[in-house]
Amino acid sequence: MFDTIAAISTPRGEGGIGIVRISGPDSLCILSKIFKPKSGKKIEELRNFSINYGHMYDKDTVVDEVMVSIMKGPNTYTREDIVEINCHGGYLITEKVLELVLRSGARIAELGEFTRRAFLNGRIDLTQAEAVIDIIHGKTDKSISLSLNQLRGDLREQIHHLKKLLLDVAAHVNVVLDYPEEGIDDPLPENLVDNLHTVVNTTDKLIKSYDQGKMIKEGVKTAIVGKPNVGKSSLLNTVLREERAIVTHIAGTTRDMIEEVVNLKGIPLVLVDTAGIRDTDDIVENIGVEKSRDMIDKADLVLFVVDGSRELSQEDMEIYERIDSHKVIGLLNKIDVETKVDITPLTKINKWIKISAKEKLGIDDMEDEIYRYVISGQVEDSSEKLIITNVRHRSALEKTKDAVNNIFDTINMGLPMDLIAVDLKEAMDSLSEVTGEISNEDLLDHIFSNFCVGK
Amino acid sequence: MFDTIAAISTPRGEGGIGIVRISGPDSLCILSKIFKPKSGKKIEELRNFSINYGHMYDKDTVVDEVMVSIMKGPNTYTREDIVEINCHGGYLITEKVLELVLRSGARIAELGEFTRRAFLNGRIDLTQAEAVIDIIHGKTDKSISLSLNQLRGDLREQIHHLKKLLLDVAAHVNVVLDYPEEGIDDPLPENLVDNLHTVVNTTDKLIKSYDQGKMIKEGVKTAIVGKPNVGKSSLLNTVLREERAIVTHIAGTTRDMIEEVVNLKGIPLVLVDTAGIRDTDDIVENIGVEKSRDMIDKADLVLFVVDGSRELSQEDMEIYERIDSHKVIGLLNKIDVETKVDITPLTKINKWIKISAKEKLGIDDMEDEIYRYVISGQVEDSSEKLIITNVRHRSALEKTKDAVNNIFDTINMGLPMDLIAVDLKEAMDSLSEVTGEISNEDLLDHIFSNFCVGK
Repeated sequence: MFDTIAAISTPRGEGGIGIVRISGPDSLCILSKIFKPKSGKKIEELRNFSINYGHMYDKDTVVDEVMVSIMKGPNTYTREDIVEINCHGGYLITEKVLELVLRSGARIAELGEFTRRAFLNGRIDLTQAEAVIDIIHGKTDKSISLSLNQLRGDLREQIHHLKKLLLDVAAHVNVVLDYPEEGIDDPLPENLVDNLHTVVNTTDKLIKSYDQGKMIKEGVKTAIVGKPNVGKSSLLNTVLREERAIVTHIAGTTRDMIEEVVNLKGIPLVLVDTAGIRDTDDIVENIGVEKSRDMIDKADLVLFVVDGSRELSQEDMEIYERIDSHKVIGLLNKIDVETKVDITPLTKINKWIKISAKEKLGIDDMEDEIYRYVISGQVEDSSEKLIITNVRHRSALEKTKDAVNNIFDTINMGLPMDLIAVDLKEAMDSLSEVTGEISNEDLLDHIFSNFCVGK
Repeated sequence: MFDTIAAISTPRGEGGIGIVRISGPDSLCILSKIFKPKSGKKIEELRNFSINYGHMYDKDTVVDEVMVSIMKGPNTYTREDIVEINCHGGYLITEKVLELVLRSGARIAELGEFTRRAFLNGRIDLTQAEAVIDIIHGKTDKSISLSLNQLRGDLREQIHHLKKLLLDVAAHVNVVLDYPEEGIDDPLPENLVDNLHTVVNTTDKLIKSYDQGKMIKEGVKTAIVGKPNVGKSSLLNTVLREERAIVTHIAGTTRDMIEEVVNLKGIPLVLVDTAGIRDTDDIVENIGVEKSRDMIDKADLVLFVVDGSRELSQEDMEIYERIDSHKVIGLLNKIDVETKVDITPLTKINKWIKISAKEKLGIDDMEDEIYRYVISGQVEDSSEKLIITNVRHRSALEKTKDAVNNIFDTINMGLPMDLIAVDLKEAMDSLSEVTGEISNEDLLDHIFSNFCVGK
């Protein structure tokens, strides 16, 4: 049983409506001290999930004219009794109403404490709680869409499914260990080995989805590289001009790493450069390959631009050598003039797009290819697929996968069953960490400190 | 009949909850296209004044998890059907929900359009609409308290009462004018003359209350003046140190006119100086009496500081000469040392407070006196008394008062009754302007342009 908390749940500032939210066992009792419904009814007579017009009173003084929502637990956000006071949305008036609520017996809520209670009271798991803050911070449609799936419980269900598979294995292992007289010393039955394979494959897919999830959530750091005068600046200008919707701010990227952000089909494309990508030509000339390599290392995606009207040079090759083949798209520029380049030596680049930055040819193809790159060439509609966006989830899933792989080693080497039991526990505990069934105060403090007050 | 409008009613920014408000005949129809209650009920089955958990849908895609309030007219803010969608409080997610509502048939609301409809649909008069925005912008308890009284309808009732008094006079005048054959050419009966006196006295009181109302709403511009070394800086420092609650920002005051704002019993005291009041001593020395006079003219209240330990000098007298006797409090400083000054020549200063800025003596007395000055020595508790805070109201009331005074002139000079009828109409029309019974689009545009969107 918790105490009763209150906070302003709307953003700070002047607006039409401000909301003071109260949650806890005394919510209605506190309300009865300070709210008089216009209907003349008593607080206990107000219907559940009703909105009530009336006035807030500080003794005999009217503090504000308000609409009050009554939501009795357990079917509420926190599973507790919740009262929401919709007052006038000014800075001071909202503060005054909150102050009155606090003086009447509530405690000021900590960051994210309402959602923390929703978690602690078992309405949502930790992945859903994390989805709430991701939705609020969401900067693109796609990232909000992923968070909504997570809030719906998609990841929770997947994790529960994996735990179920491991529990079946554990049941068998425990029988073997607890009743050695039965003489079962077979390896695991095939169906249970399948369970383990499913866990490894599924966690592996989820772990791999993180890179994509991170790009969708935080943006795709994209470096446009190439030797001087291959048309990088024109390409950048063309992309910037084509995309009307500029994403305003991507969390977690520092100012000196962002140059321009464009919204590519709902995915933020962060065109990165450490010193102004418009001057890339100069940079490569002046600061040379070193700088270029740094950009390439930091990028999620490299657009390697080659001048199609000239033959490949030593400079092209120097940049090419540094590119990781997993994250590059080749752009054969200047197709509006006669093509002279021979790209056959550039074997590690699988995908080439022919463009003319100047004449705006092939730009749609390029954007389609970038989009495909981000959604990993897998299911086209990312809403169909489970994608994780949280590094905490990835770490825990890696521990699960490693532990299950250890089990395979144990089996292959014919080592004792006890070792399997230890790794099974590790694997299941790591899954429980994802959903928060296993957690600690420090972790919860860390997670909820990213929330706004009043949520 | 109006169309259906929608807007984000909470302040912009990241917070726990964002509200998209819809008002108009199609509110529920629009809702039915995009909201699915978890209960599985149809929109038309949802109870009036109920809160409903569910999801917003853009075709088959979930846009957000929301709580939806259903409020059917006419007992609503606008008197129309209102739907409020409480969604997650992020920048983008709130925008997305609004955008979905707009695509489903609503029009984006103009500034203050919800309140404008409340006015146009006759739920509130113009003084109440103006009170709404004053509450949202309210920067001190006292100003919000005045606005709440106005929102309750106190001013509206007073204006209606005055109109009633004038209507009685008009009824008599019309009879006299319409039936000349009756031969009534008496002056007005005594009770109707009393009516006119009441109107003049009441409007006069309201007009006079404006200065006070303005000070409560916008702050009391207070100039601390006196010749060098009388202790102005120490006094300022003492006041600033004593008042813990600093008012953050007072609307309508420009940066270069504010130096420090302190909260004196709920009234913002704006300690003004055009060039940094901490350097007042230097200013008077350097820029001289000219600068001082400017400060004195602009101030609502002048604190004239005299050094009690020295005799009055020519410099004291030069500043004294410039002070308006209606807005000055004399401060006899340095009472911790032997008093040598003789203030008898300073006849136009009625109120002297003995203080020691250095030893912090008499500061409470001074603050009490300032407070009394602001509440005009009338009713101590300003909530008991009708105070206007709006210059529009003052102008209209002045027109009413002038018109009724014209009627007295007409009577005294024995001029024809027709003239009385003209002035009566002028007086009543001016009252109707206050409440908005007579208004025009330009005036309404002007008033509601000060609102936030979504209110």
